[in-house]
Amino acid sequence: MNAMQIFSVPPGSGYSSCSPSGLFLHLGFARVVIVRSSASSRRKNPLRFTRASSSSDPLLVQAARGNLVSRPPAWMMRQAGRYMAVYRKLAEKHPSFRVRSETVDLIVEISLQPWRAFHPDGVIIFSDILTPLPAFGVPFEIEEVKGPIIQNPISSENDLDNLHPIDLDKLQFVGESLKILRSEVGEHAAVLGFVGAPWTIATYIVEGGTTRTYATIKSMCHTAPHVLKTLLSHLTRAISEYIIFQVKSGAQCIQIFDSWGGQIPPHAWEQWSRPYIQEMVSAVRTECPNVPLVLYINGNGGLLERMIGTGVDVIGLDWTVDMADGRRRLGNKVALQGNVDPAYLFCPLPALTDEIHRVVKSAGRRGHILNLGHGVLVKTPEEAVAHFFDVVRGLRYDTLFKESMLENLEHVA
Amino acid sequence: MNAMQIFSVPPGSGYSSCSPSGLFLHLGFARVVIVRSSASSRRKNPLRFTRASSSSDPLLVQAARGNLVSRPPAWMMRQAGRYMAVYRKLAEKHPSFRVRSETVDLIVEISLQPWRAFHPDGVIIFSDILTPLPAFGVPFEIEEVKGPIIQNPISSENDLDNLHPIDLDKLQFVGESLKILRSEVGEHAAVLGFVGAPWTIATYIVEGGTTRTYATIKSMCHTAPHVLKTLLSHLTRAISEYIIFQVKSGAQCIQIFDSWGGQIPPHAWEQWSRPYIQEMVSAVRTECPNVPLVLYINGNGGLLERMIGTGVDVIGLDWTVDMADGRRRLGNKVALQGNVDPAYLFCPLPALTDEIHRVVKSAGRRGHILNLGHGVLVKTPEEAVAHFFDVVRGLRYDTLFKESMLENLEHVA
Repeated sequence: MNAMQIFSVPPGSGYSSCSPSGLFLHLGFARVVIVRSSASSRRKNPLRFTRASSSSDPLLVQAARGNLVSRPPAWMMRQAGRYMAVYRKLAEKHPSFRVRSETVDLIVEISLQPWRAFHPDGVIIFSDILTPLPAFGVPFEIEEVKGPIIQNPISSENDLDNLHPIDLDKLQFVGESLKILRSEVGEHAAVLGFVGAPWTIATYIVEGGTTRTYATIKSMCHTAPHVLKTLLSHLTRAISEYIIFQVKSGAQCIQIFDSWGGQIPPHAWEQWSRPYIQEMVSAVRTECPNVPLVLYINGNGGLLERMIGTGVDVIGLDWTVDMADGRRRLGNKVALQGNVDPAYLFCPLPALTDEIHRVVKSAGRRGHILNLGHGVLVKTPEEAVAHFFDVVRGLRYDTLFKESMLENLEHVA
Repeated sequence: MNAMQIFSVPPGSGYSSCSPSGLFLHLGFARVVIVRSSASSRRKNPLRFTRASSSSDPLLVQAARGNLVSRPPAWMMRQAGRYMAVYRKLAEKHPSFRVRSETVDLIVEISLQPWRAFHPDGVIIFSDILTPLPAFGVPFEIEEVKGPIIQNPISSENDLDNLHPIDLDKLQFVGESLKILRSEVGEHAAVLGFVGAPWTIATYIVEGGTTRTYATIKSMCHTAPHVLKTLLSHLTRAISEYIIFQVKSGAQCIQIFDSWGGQIPPHAWEQWSRPYIQEMVSAVRTECPNVPLVLYINGNGGLLERMIGTGVDVIGLDWTVDMADGRRRLGNKVALQGNVDPAYLFCPLPALTDEIHRVVKSAGRRGHILNLGHGVLVKTPEEAVAHFFDVVRGLRYDTLFKESMLENLEHVA
C-alpha cells in the first residue's frame, strides 16, 4: 500500500519560475530524493497547493509548493549580517549600509557569507525593503542612530507628485546580484528575493523613518484616506514590477515582508494592507505563475487566518504562535514557514536540537520551510547557526513520523 | 418575555472583596441601573462566570463578573502619566519616579489626576510592577535613559540567598494609598490594584533590567532551570501576598500584567509562566474569593486560549487581536478587557467614536470592560481621552443591541 516517489533534482541555475523564460535551461547532474508516502497519509493530507511543480526545483521551492520532500528545507531571516565575524570585518571596510546593499560585489559577497559557512537551503539576497524607494521617487538616507530617514515624507496630495513609475534600470545592482547568486549557488539551494509589502513601506514614507507608535500613518487613514490609498496603489504597482524583475533575474522564491502589518488592528489590516498584497500577488502570478510567494508579518497571532486571503503560497509564523496552532488554524491550504525563537540560538545546543524537532513535527510532514520566527539576533553565536542547519540536514520525515506511518500501515492492513 | 433587573449600586468604599472583611460597610446613597434582558438573549449567552456577585459593586466589578450591566465600564492602562499636563508639572517638581510612586501623597494625587479630569470607571493606583521588589530582597534603581537597573541580577543558586519573604510593612505606602483612593473615589468607580506576573518580574531580575531579546532568561530555562523555578516560586508567593494585601487595603479588582509573557513561545509560556499565575490565582481565591482578576499579556494573539487555564476572570486583549475573534476564541467563559488601539486617540474624534462602538459591539453585551489594547501613549491629546470616556458613558447596550433584541423578540413571539 506504499507509493514510492522519486524526485530528480537537477541544478536549478536556469530561470525557471517566470514566463517567458520558464524553461529548465540547465539539466546537469541530478540528485535523487526518495520519499515514501502511504495511501492513508495521502488521504489524511488533502493538500490544496495549486502552484505547478517540477522535480527539478530546489528543495525549498518544492516544500513551498507542498510537494512531498524528504526533509524540511531551512534558511534564516536576516541570515547574513552582523552576527558573522566576516560580515563585521567587511562592514568595517565598507561602513555605509547603502554602499554594502547597493554594490553588486558586496551584495553577492555578503549574501554568500552564510551560504559558505552554513549551507542553508535558501540564499536570500542581501538588501533592504527600502532599497527600491529611490527608483520610484522616494530618496532616503540611513543615519547611524536613527536608521532610515525619508527626506520628503508624504502627508498630502501634493507630496504624491514626487512619485513616478519604478525605474528598474536604477535597480540593476539587484538584478545583477541575483544572476550571480543563482550561478554561484547552482542547484544546491534556492535563491530568494524579497520586498516590503505596500503598507509596511508606506509606514516609512509617511512617518519619515522608523516609528514606535505609527500614529501619523494611523491617523492618515482617517484624515487623508485618499492620499494613503493613492500611495499604497502606487507602491503596489512598483513593488509588483520589482518582484517580477527579481524573479526574471534569478530569484526562485520571493518573501514579502509586511513587517509592520501587525501594528494595525486586524480590521484595519484588512482595509489597508491585505488588498494591496493580494493585488501584488495577482500581478506577479500573471507574469510568473510558478514562483512561490511567502508572506511574513511580525506579531501575526491575531492575523493568521486573514493572511490566506492574500493568495500567497507560504505563511511565515513568528515565534509567538505555536507551530501546531498555526497548522490547526490554517489547515493544509498553505505551506508554513518558521518558527524557532531566535533566542534558542543562545541556548545549549541540545535544547536547540529539541526545539527544531518540536517545530518540524508540529508543522507536519508536508508544506513546511524551517526558519526562525524572526531575524537572527545580533551576537548570535555562529556555532549555533551552524548547528541549526546541521540538525535540519540530518532530519528525515520518514524517521520523524515513523510511528504515525506505522499506525497508518496497520490501519490499511 | 422580558425580564427587568434592577441593580442598586451603593457606595463601594467598604472593603468588600476579601474575607474576613467582606462586608458592605458603607451603604449610603444608591444609583439605580436598569438592564433589560430577553429570555432568548439569556439563552444565547450561557455565561459561565463563577465569582459571587453583589449589586452593590461598582460597574467595573460587575462587568468583570459577567453580570448584566447597562453599558461597558471603561478605564485605560497607563491612565495616569506623562500625557497629562498636570502630571508633567508634578513630575518637574518631583523628578524621581521612585519618589512619585512610593510617597502616599504623590501616589494618591497622580492616581486621581485622570479620575478628576475624565471620570473613568476604574481608578488604578499609580505604581510600577517593580515596586514590591525591594520588599523581598531585590533592590533596584531607575536610570533616566536605561530604565530600571537591578543591582544584583539572579543568575545562580547563590544569588537566590538574597531573596526573603515579602515584608508588607515596606509597602505600607501602597496600602495607605489604596485606602485613601477608595475613600476619595467612593461608589463612583472601582479602585484597581496591579502586579506583575512572576515570569514578567523574573525577566527584570534575571536580565538586570529591560531587554530587547530576553536571551539571558530564555537561556536560563535550559542552563539553570532549577534556579529559575525557585525564583518563580518565590515570586509567586510574594506577589500572591502582595495582591491579597492590596485587596485588603481597598483594591476592588486586580490587574496582573504578564507584559513579557508574549516574548516566549506559547509552549514555553505554558511551562514558565502559566503555572505560576495559576498558583497565584488559587492563593488569592482562598483569601479573597470575590475580587475579579484580570490578566493582560502584550502580544497575546498566539496565547489567548491558554490564558483561560490561569483561572482569571477577565482576559485583556491587546489591539493586535480583533475583539470579535477574541470573543469567538474564548467564548463566554471569561470576561474580556480592551482593546482600542491607543493610536485612535490621535485620530479625529468621530473615528475614535466609531472604533469604540465597533469594539463594544464585537465584545457582546456581557462581560466586557472597555480599555485600550495597550497603555496610553506619550503625547496623546487629553481631549481624546476625555472623548473616549464621554462616548462610553453615553453608550447603552439596549440601544446598541436593539436590532438583535428586536429579532429575538420576534422569534419569541
